[in-house]
Amino acid sequence: MESRKLYFEQGAGEPLPLVASSERRVRFEEVDVLGMVWHGRYPSYFEDGRIAFGDQYGLTYQRFMQEKTVAPVVQMHFDYKQPLRFDETFTITTALHWTEAARLNYSYKLVNSNDDLVASGYTVQLFTSPDGTMLLFTPEWLKEFYAKWKEGSWQE
Amino acid sequence: MESRKLYFEQGAGEPLPLVASSERRVRFEEVDVLGMVWHGRYPSYFEDGRIAFGDQYGLTYQRFMQEKTVAPVVQMHFDYKQPLRFDETFTITTALHWTEAARLNYSYKLVNSNDDLVASGYTVQLFTSPDGTMLLFTPEWLKEFYAKWKEGSWQE
Amino acid sequence: MESRKLYFEQGAGEPLPLVASSERRVRFEEVDVLGMVWHGRYPSYFEDGRIAFGDQYGLTYQRFMQEKTVAPVVQMHFDYKQPLRFDETFTITTALHWTEAARLNYSYKLVNSNDDLVASGYTVQLFTSPDGTMLLFTPEWLKEFYAKWKEGSWQE
Amino acid sequence: MESRKLYFEQGAGEPLPLVASSERRVRFEEVDVLGMVWHGRYPSYFEDGRIAFGDQYGLTYQRFMQEKTVAPVVQMHFDYKQPLRFDETFTITTALHWTEAARLNYSYKLVNSNDDLVASGYTVQLFTSPDGTMLLFTPEWLKEFYAKWKEGSWQE
Repeated sequence: MESRKLYFEQGAGEPLPLVASSERRVRFEEVDVLGMVWHGRYPSYFEDGRIAFGDQYGLTYQRFMQEKTVAPVVQMHFDYKQPLRFDETFTITTALHWTEAARLNYSYKLVNSNDDLVASGYTVQLFTSPDGTMLLFTPEWLKEFYAKWKEGSWQE
Repeated sequence: MESRKLYFEQGAGEPLPLVASSERRVRFEEVDVLGMVWHGRYPSYFEDGRIAFGDQYGLTYQRFMQEKTVAPVVQMHFDYKQPLRFDETFTITTALHWTEAARLNYSYKLVNSNDDLVASGYTVQLFTSPDGTMLLFTPEWLKEFYAKWKEGSWQE
Repeated sequence: MESRKLYFEQGAGEPLPLVASSERRVRFEEVDVLGMVWHGRYPSYFEDGRIAFGDQYGLTYQRFMQEKTVAPVVQMHFDYKQPLRFDETFTITTALHWTEAARLNYSYKLVNSNDDLVASGYTVQLFTSPDGTMLLFTPEWLKEFYAKWKEGSWQE
Repeated sequence: MESRKLYFEQGAGEPLPLVASSERRVRFEEVDVLGMVWHGRYPSYFEDGRIAFGDQYGLTYQRFMQEKTVAPVVQMHFDYKQPLRFDETFTITTALHWTEAARLNYSYKLVNSNDDLVASGYTVQLFTSPDGTMLLFTPEWLKEFYAKWKEGSWQE
């Protein structure tokens, strides 16, 4: 929670973040000459986290395509705390943070098998139609998602 | 300059950033199903920028290896402004910002052939020895680099 | 079996190939503008297959490092039969083929969830010491592995 | 020529291959823990070769899209001769080989700055319409390209 707070404020009375968890194992091809995962591979780890989140909460790419909503990443940030090495298995915890604005605010935490924080970060996505026109308001189908969230339907 | 200021403060009396410029052309494999470069490819563009910078100012990987200095990226940030499309040629402007701390502060600007800002961002690198021990002070050989910078030797 | 035979001959009286199976799911970043996995991502799929094989039979990278044996890929081949699309899950079947020569002969088959052959191919690896010197004979520790294979110890 | 002959036969009386040349420099992110380019990066090098070829002879992706011709890679092959290391500059020589069949037969040679052969290989592409229907005949616009080739219009 702590590091997430650093990225997105939790407003009073706002629903808590929705959280999903997934695992990944470091590939040979992801490791650099020093035996550590090259810092530039981590967007793929965040992507995996977002996919796992989408699977769990129904926010899949397929749903976005079906609803003709595109959600380009407009900001991405990484804080690297410790190296990941070849063959290590690590856990990606992905959280969607409540916002009233027309955007998706995700934060990410990567934790290794010793329970050490490896990296954290966030992405911000805006909404456009398929032709690239910026949407100033959250699409209706996503508003319904947010409404359910507020009701607590996503609480396990 | 403007966007760079957003990332790193220019202290009064401090040397101006050192700047290098390089070109790259979007590869087929970098473009996603929407015809835009996937946001996760941009670390490679920043890396290219840093390499071009190193070539111009003598801060190459080879030099770091020879001096037994490792400089892991501990923070990386992207602001995406506009998509890049397949086959586009764009310019990466890489700036090293003055700091008294034991770190390397780079900022990056990607500009397309219409002179539109495509993306900007920054990286922060710390110093370690090859065994991973954090160096609390800037290595001597880099201090010399910084000294020359202050003297203005790098001004063209 | 059929397609594997195309790649490596099964000699009379020789042990049957050792086979391992693994699953992977197509990532967003692997798909091109046509919505199909870019052909150049498949080496990563073969690598995954080899890793799964190594896990099952004890031929891990860690073992190779420990034994100071390097096994560079000297030949790689792909036959693409059908596209893979975003989010598809597919199975990689990896087979190690018996050989008396100082090499590792792997073949691979990728099959989608409809049981269609998506792609097949092979890799050939030779052996070197860490300094790059070619080994003309199979290293002792691998000979033991081959001996067990011949005895049928790997048969499940 | 020699190694190319290994991949595609040069028929008597057939036009000689068309050849294009391009340069590339090994990126940090392409190098593995042994300091050598991971074998799975080479499809990107072949792709670069094909792009350079297309630029020189007008067989660009844009042209293919405009003509509604898709040319999926159905076969790809690599022979690795020598490692490439970080920061090395190498030359990619790409040759299109004459064929009467409905396909594109490219071969590739990668040569380092010492003029050593690093790797060679080939790709075979077939033709489909955008909906994936296989084209049994070479598209008209490409036949014109082949006709010019036969006339020697592409000879410099």
